Amino acid sequence: MQEKELIKRQIIKKIKTAGDILITSHIMPDGDNIGSLCGLTTALKLSGYKVDCALFDAVPDILKFLPGSSEIKKLGEINKKYDLLIVLDSSSVDRTGVTDLSKYSDFVINIDHHVCNDNFGNINLLHTNYSATAQIVFELIKKARLKFNPEIATCLYCGLMTDTVGFQTSNTDENVFKMASYLVKYGANPNHISREMFQNKSMKNIIMIGKTLSALNFIDNGLICWGKVDQKTIKEVGALPTDCFGIVNQMVSIKGVEVAILFNEKADGKTIVDFRSKSFIDVNKIANAFGGGGHMRASGATIEGNLTDIISEVVNFSVEHIKTNYHTGLMKGTNNIESHGSGKQKGSKTNTVVKSVGI
Amino acid sequence: MQEKELIKRQIIKKIKTAGDILITSHIMPDGDNIGSLCGLTTALKLSGYKVDCALFDAVPDILKFLPGSSEIKKLGEINKKYDLLIVLDSSSVDRTGVTDLSKYSDFVINIDHHVCNDNFGNINLLHTNYSATAQIVFELIKKARLKFNPEIATCLYCGLMTDTVGFQTSNTDENVFKMASYLVKYGANPNHISREMFQNKSMKNIIMIGKTLSALNFIDNGLICWGKVDQKTIKEVGALPTDCFGIVNQMVSIKGVEVAILFNEKADGKTIVDFRSKSFIDVNKIANAFGGGGHMRASGATIEGNLTDIISEVVNFSVEHIKTNYHTGLMKGTNNIESHGSGKQKGSKTNTVVKSVGI
Repeated sequence: MQEKELIKRQIIKKIKTAGDILITSHIMPDGDNIGSLCGLTTALKLSGYKVDCALFDAVPDILKFLPGSSEIKKLGEINKKYDLLIVLDSSSVDRTGVTDLSKYSDFVINIDHHVCNDNFGNINLLHTNYSATAQIVFELIKKARLKFNPEIATCLYCGLMTDTVGFQTSNTDENVFKMASYLVKYGANPNHISREMFQNKSMKNIIMIGKTLSALNFIDNGLICWGKVDQKTIKEVGALPTDCFGIVNQMVSIKGVEVAILFNEKADGKTIVDFRSKSFIDVNKIANAFGGGGHMRASGATIEGNLTDIISEVVNFSVEHIKTNYHTGLMKGTNNIESHGSGKQKGSKTNTVVKSVGI
Repeated sequence: MQEKELIKRQIIKKIKTAGDILITSHIMPDGDNIGSLCGLTTALKLSGYKVDCALFDAVPDILKFLPGSSEIKKLGEINKKYDLLIVLDSSSVDRTGVTDLSKYSDFVINIDHHVCNDNFGNINLLHTNYSATAQIVFELIKKARLKFNPEIATCLYCGLMTDTVGFQTSNTDENVFKMASYLVKYGANPNHISREMFQNKSMKNIIMIGKTLSALNFIDNGLICWGKVDQKTIKEVGALPTDCFGIVNQMVSIKGVEVAILFNEKADGKTIVDFRSKSFIDVNKIANAFGGGGHMRASGATIEGNLTDIISEVVNFSVEHIKTNYHTGLMKGTNNIESHGSGKQKGSKTNTVVKSVGI
């Protein structure tokens, strides 16, 4: 802890001496990513620093309510060099969407909570036991005595809530709730933030959830549950890729289901396979076998080929893998909702590769 | 507040002088109800008091993980009289499932957070601004310096999480999170409790959710969304009444939907109509028109008649009611997930009456 405090002091010193600062985070932005980004940017700006923030991807619609999110630039459009670059919530350089950060600054501060972070910064502040990067940003804001307001509280609350999956993950500890209490006291509105995040599903998303859930398949007395979203249904509904979110999480919420597998057939002939597990099976190992990756409880792979063949191969492999590696009747009762930050970040350009099967 | 502290002192004095105590709560038990009941019972037992607890209804499967819940007796089987009866989380006597409490004790302590509580006790401790009765029980346990353990923390956490709908309601304030932090510090496990509560859905529940969501109807540009669960589908799936939970909440989570209406046809020819609203329409008023009741954001009515006629009448009435009473384009943006305790308790035997329509 002493060492971390020293690193925080170095970071604050670096920020104070920088003429201008750029802050960025990872591709495929989520609540912790944008919440931490906007929270830190606003706190620094309010305190008189010259700061820009930018992301490789655009802000998803669902996160546009976050104060400050409209000022996030596109990383690809940044053509100047800053005194300091702060990278948040990203385990490696490639997670930012670019391969070389020296285009943006010669000095990089790396702030993250993922255990797989590879220390790519000139200064690395890694709290791998924290549930969200928003917690580290919060501590930094307090330690640097930066100004604070309800907008910053809203951003950091969003980060905390997102990465604990609504205060449900295994690393939701007393400090998470202590921070939430503080943020609410200083202006974060849990009701408003929950509404923006969870009550804005598209009509077609709900219809796709409905169609998939009403045609699920159960194997091994319901130990494995699999479902599919095929191009025929997608075209019938007129659904976008974002309309297929949230399905696999509902599948794994079924009593007795340990592994949920969703096959999402894309227009380009590839199928994204999403794996979830409830308490004891490491689905990362199953995803690995198909060239994918992720966490113990949430992984994915992109596979090329005929949908029926892919389903058959993945389901059969999963059944065999479980049979070989687990005494399924004996090993229940450990973690359920895996904590974010506890494994390799999913969706990285390098860890989800395309593999052909069925050929 | 001074007055409430005085009442708490009176309650503690009464508990300390009682030879034996019975604790009960309301019918159709939920997480706050059983969490508060088991939490207080265990704390009193640990501290050496002679306590029984009983409910009118059985403990739902989903709440059987709560420590102490297996010791809850059936209220109808209690044949002795106690020195003291404590009624938790119930706005009126009839909510306990019985009409006369004097069979159980001549002295009643009424502890609740519902604004509609009618002060039926000899002592009434009402914190109507609290999100859960578990908060009041927690304060009482601390003030009385009763013993505390991880089992009690688990029960109270379950109450707090249930009545804030996972920390999302409008009364989720800094004190809610402060209490959650304390409970986690003393042994409540948010991950475990979330798994027990939210990851134990029946296979048939998920299939009923799927079938209903894939055939929704939208009116007024999606301002109203309605769906149905008919006897034909129920029989096809072999679903139990409990397999129809959670559907209407997914319907109201759709972007732009302000009112969600679910028609649930029962085997006895009656249809339970569930209403939800998102931010500005008071669905209690719509439910009232059909002899039902509840909260502004969550209400219900039981209607007798032909399903098609009922759907037509309720949907038409809702459209007209909204047209007459709201400038729908202008009034958005207030509360979303209504706080528990803020209105008349739903499901009371007296406020959900049967009304025939379509005749």
